[in-house]
Amino acid sequence: MKGRVIETPVFMPVGTNATVKAMTVEEIKSIGYQLILGNTYHLHLRPGDEIIKRLGGLHSFMNWDRCILTDSGGFQIFSLARLNKVLEEGVHFQNHLDGTKELLTPEIAIHIQENLGSDIMMVLDECLPIPTKRDIVQKSIELTNRWAQRCFQARRSENNLFAIVQGADFVDLRIQSAQMLMETDFDGFAIGGLSVGESKDVMSEIVSHIAPMLPPNKPRYLMGVGDPVDLVENIGLGIDMFDCVMPTRNARNGLLFTFQGKISIKQARYKEDPLPIDENCQCEVCQNYSRAYLRHLFVANEILASRLNTMHNLWFLKELMAKARIAIVNGEYQKFKKAFLDVYQGSESG
Amino acid sequence: MKGRVIETPVFMPVGTNATVKAMTVEEIKSIGYQLILGNTYHLHLRPGDEIIKRLGGLHSFMNWDRCILTDSGGFQIFSLARLNKVLEEGVHFQNHLDGTKELLTPEIAIHIQENLGSDIMMVLDECLPIPTKRDIVQKSIELTNRWAQRCFQARRSENNLFAIVQGADFVDLRIQSAQMLMETDFDGFAIGGLSVGESKDVMSEIVSHIAPMLPPNKPRYLMGVGDPVDLVENIGLGIDMFDCVMPTRNARNGLLFTFQGKISIKQARYKEDPLPIDENCQCEVCQNYSRAYLRHLFVANEILASRLNTMHNLWFLKELMAKARIAIVNGEYQKFKKAFLDVYQGSESG
Repeated sequence: MKGRVIETPVFMPVGTNATVKAMTVEEIKSIGYQLILGNTYHLHLRPGDEIIKRLGGLHSFMNWDRCILTDSGGFQIFSLARLNKVLEEGVHFQNHLDGTKELLTPEIAIHIQENLGSDIMMVLDECLPIPTKRDIVQKSIELTNRWAQRCFQARRSENNLFAIVQGADFVDLRIQSAQMLMETDFDGFAIGGLSVGESKDVMSEIVSHIAPMLPPNKPRYLMGVGDPVDLVENIGLGIDMFDCVMPTRNARNGLLFTFQGKISIKQARYKEDPLPIDENCQCEVCQNYSRAYLRHLFVANEILASRLNTMHNLWFLKELMAKARIAIVNGEYQKFKKAFLDVYQGSESG
Repeated sequence: MKGRVIETPVFMPVGTNATVKAMTVEEIKSIGYQLILGNTYHLHLRPGDEIIKRLGGLHSFMNWDRCILTDSGGFQIFSLARLNKVLEEGVHFQNHLDGTKELLTPEIAIHIQENLGSDIMMVLDECLPIPTKRDIVQKSIELTNRWAQRCFQARRSENNLFAIVQGADFVDLRIQSAQMLMETDFDGFAIGGLSVGESKDVMSEIVSHIAPMLPPNKPRYLMGVGDPVDLVENIGLGIDMFDCVMPTRNARNGLLFTFQGKISIKQARYKEDPLPIDENCQCEVCQNYSRAYLRHLFVANEILASRLNTMHNLWFLKELMAKARIAIVNGEYQKFKKAFLDVYQGSESG
């Protein structure tokens, strides 16, 4: 999508299987999203990137005419697939759908992403759990760097390519990883391997060291983060881009964001509540439906519950990003952040 | 909804739990539907008709500003609830959600429907399986008639009230049932207790006897019918109104209507098929998505599959009703019917 502008900070809804779960692309557009994420691993397995290519690429396949970022598939291999084995050439694994043995190399990861026709491709990286022993992490960031170079060389398209900083919870290894990767002219830089169960302090410490050293003229992307508090904290540390399945998954589980905190719509207290989720929200759901109706749909296990709840949570995150942007432009981000966190965390009702 | 015109023949999408499954009311409106069906039994149990009343009635609760027909709850008691016992006063049953013992009388059925605020209420009737012994059916149609009179007397609103002709597969008892009910000034007449597993010949024989004897100036409603072939056949026999969960349930199971017959979108033959479900269809789904994409969504068990498939099937039925209406107005219904059935049945690919 040449020439398309993505305003930052930006949250990217995740469209794992060529659909943001429960939503149409028209709805995603109507909320105002310009950029969504597609999962290379899932799309490679089903329906297959070659099929998607023959059908005109992922944009055409899912009828989305705005931008798509694809991950490399690495994260899913390390979290979903069985018996993965990391070698210099790449990672061998058995896929989680039918156990077929497969190999993902940096070159294959780029080839798949070019078949999909994504606008922003990610390098293949090794994701380690936290904690992992230092010497293993040291070797891993070197491998991740060599894989990143191979991805850079393998690119045949004009699609953007982002590198991924790794290094588990070792700040100095994170810095080393970033320095190695910055020697190459990647189009953006991500911080990967966080939001995997570590403490908030660890994430905060790493991001506060790494974000400022990344090139100021290129996007900085913190992978796997979508909690409102984390978003606001990390925007404050210099992050431009985020993705996470949590906001849409939460929605399907009845957990809804409001600027006054999260609410669980299934609670009995909402049984006869005629108010919308959030009285100040301008989204289609809050304009048209009561908490009582949304609770009823959730309790009755209706598909419409997933739809309306997802619509609301994605609207909320769009609004949150828009407010953050205005605060940044006005030079009032710290004030905005404090005001948001005070109200959001103050009355969180779980 | 005073003054609202419903063009007939009309198919009513079923909104069991105050939602047509997988759809928003905006989508139902955008297709062109003026009238949907709500289930008294389900809504009485969950969230409860008293709650719906306090929240402004069913229209307000589900944000639907067009017409609603509600059934009486009888059919669900006879098909879903446990241990139902029919007495003169009404029917005792244990609800299927938590086994609570309840009583539904004609007066309660009307009271619930008035709480919901439906535009067209149905009388409480006894639904018998086919076959049932003649003497039992004879007694049953007399009870159904007495219950219908009690419903008529119990009405406190200006909502329409339709009676229901019963009589299992005995044509003479069906005629007797219709004659008894027609002595009262109901706003419309339904034929109930069909589409319960009997042969097509039985349905056809009964409808061809009963429909012509019902008042020509009042709607004739064949309950539980939604198969395209049955719709076209029964419109030909004089039926104006239909409802059925099948078209929306089929959609969720990947069975899609086209004017060339049904297709099962999960079939491997559609894996790389770039065509829409039906090349001549003007619905949003056929304008934007390929069979390959719809198959992928179905196989990946995505909510969007249910949404898009339901949207298409409801569009198809709206189109079918519109074409039937034009044929009736032009005095060409038999020609239309033959042409439709020839193509639809000729190439049915299951």
